[in-house]
Amino acid sequence: MTDTCSIIKIGGQVLDDEAAYAAFVRDFAALPGLKLLVHGGGKIATELGKRLGLEARYVGGRRVTDAGTLELVTMVYGGLINRQLVARLQAAGCPAIGLTGADANVLAAVRRPVGAVDYGWVGDPSAATVGTEALRGLWSLGLVPVLAPLTHDGAGQLLNTNADTIASVVAQALAPFYRVHLVFCFEKRGVLTDPAREDSALPTLSRRDYARLVDDATVSGGMLPKLENAFTAVEHGVERVIIGQAGDLLQNIGEHGLAGTLLTR
Amino acid sequence: MTDTCSIIKIGGQVLDDEAAYAAFVRDFAALPGLKLLVHGGGKIATELGKRLGLEARYVGGRRVTDAGTLELVTMVYGGLINRQLVARLQAAGCPAIGLTGADANVLAAVRRPVGAVDYGWVGDPSAATVGTEALRGLWSLGLVPVLAPLTHDGAGQLLNTNADTIASVVAQALAPFYRVHLVFCFEKRGVLTDPAREDSALPTLSRRDYARLVDDATVSGGMLPKLENAFTAVEHGVERVIIGQAGDLLQNIGEHGLAGTLLTR
Repeated sequence: MTDTCSIIKIGGQVLDDEAAYAAFVRDFAALPGLKLLVHGGGKIATELGKRLGLEARYVGGRRVTDAGTLELVTMVYGGLINRQLVARLQAAGCPAIGLTGADANVLAAVRRPVGAVDYGWVGDPSAATVGTEALRGLWSLGLVPVLAPLTHDGAGQLLNTNADTIASVVAQALAPFYRVHLVFCFEKRGVLTDPAREDSALPTLSRRDYARLVDDATVSGGMLPKLENAFTAVEHGVERVIIGQAGDLLQNIGEHGLAGTLLTR
Repeated sequence: MTDTCSIIKIGGQVLDDEAAYAAFVRDFAALPGLKLLVHGGGKIATELGKRLGLEARYVGGRRVTDAGTLELVTMVYGGLINRQLVARLQAAGCPAIGLTGADANVLAAVRRPVGAVDYGWVGDPSAATVGTEALRGLWSLGLVPVLAPLTHDGAGQLLNTNADTIASVVAQALAPFYRVHLVFCFEKRGVLTDPAREDSALPTLSRRDYARLVDDATVSGGMLPKLENAFTAVEHGVERVIIGQAGDLLQNIGEHGLAGTLLTR
C-alpha cells in the first residue's frame, strides 16, 4: 500500500502570534506519518526592511525583489524564521531540518522572465524542479523537511519564491510516490462565501464553483493565487487538498470533511 | 579499511573577499571523499548590526550575545552566509546542505553558565552533543553538511557558538568512525614564529612547543582559542589537524607536510 504524506503550508500570521505559533508547533509535531512543512514570511521581514531603509514594493500581491530585498528575505525567511522554527520543532520532539531550495537541491527554479513587470530575484519552480530523491532520502533518515520560501537557479543565485507555490509543486512532484495530503493553513476557517462570517466556510469547492465565486467577486485578492495553486495540485495527482485554519486542520487531518474547505475537481 | 573524512573550517575573511570566496568554493567542491564544512561569521554581521543600531561587544575575543545579537547572527550566519554559500557550492557541483545545530539535531549545546562574565545566548557544545548518526546519515545520502556557527539547547533556543569549537568537537565525535582530517583555514600560512613573515610558518607544532610560544608571546590573541581547539582535537583521536591558508591546504589535503602547520601531540 502506498504511504500517505502530509505537505503543510503555514503563513506568516501564524508565526507573528506567539499563542498560534506554540499551538502550531505542538500540533505539527504530533502529526503522524511522513510530513513536510513550508512556511511563509510574516510581518518581521517588512519591519526589518524598514529599519534597514528598504521599502517593500508589491505588484499584483507579489513582492518585487531587488538585491537588497533578496538579502533581507534570505536573512529573515532562510535565517531567523526557518532556524527558530526548526529549533522549536526539535524541542517538541519533531526531528526537523530546515531547507531552502538550494539545500540538497530540493527545489530549483527559473528566474521569472522580465515582461511588463520586472519582479527581480523571483523564482518560479515547477513539479519537475523538485528534488524528490533528496526529500525522500531525508524522510528515509526519519527527518522532517521544513522549507523556507526560497529557491535557487542552480548557478549560485538564491531566488525569492511564493510559499503557496512551493507547497503546491512539492505536493505534485511527490504524488507519483505517495498519497499526498496538501494542507494550506491560513487565518480563515476555509473558503468563505461571506467574508464577515467564519461559519460560511464551504465544506467543499470544485473548480467550476470556484470560477463562479471569482466572477461574482466573493473570492478575490490574495485568495486567487492561493486557490490557483491549490486547484493545480488537485489536477495533478494530489489526493486531498484542504484549506483552512491550522488548529482545525492539523488536529483532524485525514478525517475527511471535519474542517476546512476540501477542494475537488 | 576505515574511511577518511575531512572537516574544513573557514573564517569570515574568506567570505568577505570575492576572489578568495570563489577560489574556496571551487577547491572545496573538488575535494574528494566525505567532507563537512564549518563557516564563521565575517564583517557583514558587524556592519548589519550597526545599521540596526546594535553595537557588537566582545569579552576575551568572544562576542557577547544579547537577544538582539542572537537574532542578528541567526539572520546573518544562519541565513545570509550559510544559504548563499550552499547555493554557490551547489553551482560548483557540491551537493551541500546548510545546517545549524538545531537542524537534524546535529549539534546541541549547553548555554554557557554566567560567571564573572555573562556571555548571553552563547552555547558550548562538546563531542558528546554532536549528532554523529544524523551527520553520517546525510553523508550516506551523498550530501555535504555546511554548518553555521549556531547550536541549540534542545529546548527551542538557538545559541551563538564559536566556529573553531564546532569544527573541533565535530571532528572529535567522528574520530571513532573515520580517520578524520581537521583543517582550520585562516589568513596566515600556518603558525608563524615571526608574525611579519609568512615564510616563518612552522611545518609542525607540538603541544609542548606551543606552550613555549605562548610563554614568550609569539602566539597570542585570537590564535590562542583556535590552537586550543586544534590541540584538543589532536588529543581526542583526530588523525590529522592542520592550520593554514585555504588555497594551500585544500589543494594539498592528505599530502602530509606540503602546506600549513601540522599539529602534533
